[in-house]
Amino acid sequence: MNILDSLEWRYATKKFDPSKKLTNQQIETLKKAFNLTPTSFGLQPIKLIVINNKEIQEKFVEHAYFQRQVADASHLLILCIEEDTTTDDINAYFDMEKRIRNIDEKVISDFRKQLIDMYKNKTVEEKQQSAKNQTYIALGNLMTVCAAEKIDACPMEGFVPEKIDELLNLKNLNLKSVLLLPVGFRAEDDIMSGMKKVRKPLSESIIELS
Amino acid sequence: MNILDSLEWRYATKKFDPSKKLTNQQIETLKKAFNLTPTSFGLQPIKLIVINNKEIQEKFVEHAYFQRQVADASHLLILCIEEDTTTDDINAYFDMEKRIRNIDEKVISDFRKQLIDMYKNKTVEEKQQSAKNQTYIALGNLMTVCAAEKIDACPMEGFVPEKIDELLNLKNLNLKSVLLLPVGFRAEDDIMSGMKKVRKPLSESIIELS
Repeated sequence: MNILDSLEWRYATKKFDPSKKLTNQQIETLKKAFNLTPTSFGLQPIKLIVINNKEIQEKFVEHAYFQRQVADASHLLILCIEEDTTTDDINAYFDMEKRIRNIDEKVISDFRKQLIDMYKNKTVEEKQQSAKNQTYIALGNLMTVCAAEKIDACPMEGFVPEKIDELLNLKNLNLKSVLLLPVGFRAEDDIMSGMKKVRKPLSESIIELS
Repeated sequence: MNILDSLEWRYATKKFDPSKKLTNQQIETLKKAFNLTPTSFGLQPIKLIVINNKEIQEKFVEHAYFQRQVADASHLLILCIEEDTTTDDINAYFDMEKRIRNIDEKVISDFRKQLIDMYKNKTVEEKQQSAKNQTYIALGNLMTVCAAEKIDACPMEGFVPEKIDELLNLKNLNLKSVLLLPVGFRAEDDIMSGMKKVRKPLSESIIELS
């Protein structure tokens, strides 16, 4: 199946089959794909929480406007941001780059200073907004990877992040939840799975200049 | 090549080969993939501009902090938001859904009213922020699709949107540019293409709860 067929196949799954579980290999693929998401300056100010625990998932239902997907899906993915991007974080990135690429400090020192200064001039709110943008990139990447791997998923902005953060004690980890992505397999009777995809014609979505 | 191999293959291409062009079929794939991006409530408040014109692309270089990718890439994609999401836009969506899925007004009328009310309570800034989030989903989707199709790309937030908007008269189309994505083929001597990928270990990016 080519990538466009995969994108046609996927849809926001409203009803999961609670008896079907993703394999460990499928979960590994999603974890690795998340980690390969390109982020701004490579800083990865985002984290993925993978929940495979029906008790926790059931507790989320009321904080997700009673949408059962969070409990019925095989696994629940939570895309989070770090509360701040600090000078230490930026230094850790460059130190990792030096190690992985076996390069000298002098090759990167100017850029290191430049990036540290750039981030010093940002407010915490600006840094959080930038990190949130990266969670949306990760969401786009993960949904396409799910589609390519025939994994069903339902992207969700509709939940109360403060409640999820509280339930999981995310404050202690300096994290904030931004997006939910239940993943698993569609229920055979999900009425949405048979519906035609609703999209604008290409002529309304695309402008070509040549 | 599986999807993880594709994600390992891709990188933010810093130097494109200006002599290599994407085929019409490759451009069609990117256009369709963009249009298949899942968006909040399916409203698609985003547009893709596809530029295949060296004269225009060259003009962008100075507004992209002199990064040559915008000019040297085969095509330059610009991900834009609509300046506002109006009641008319929401009605157009539901009318389209009725037409495509051949369903009755009574099936969707409650949700139509609910969504219109929800958007009436948002400020223009909130609606623009929500639309921007969708451009990041589209970016994540497109980068993964490019990787799967062996198309090189370079995601760019680093440019002056106001200048691009002015050059293309986007105000007249009620659009604002948010992200650039030059696409094409890496130059053989792009030193970045041989570099190891820099990512945190999975243990730092992922938290598992089971």
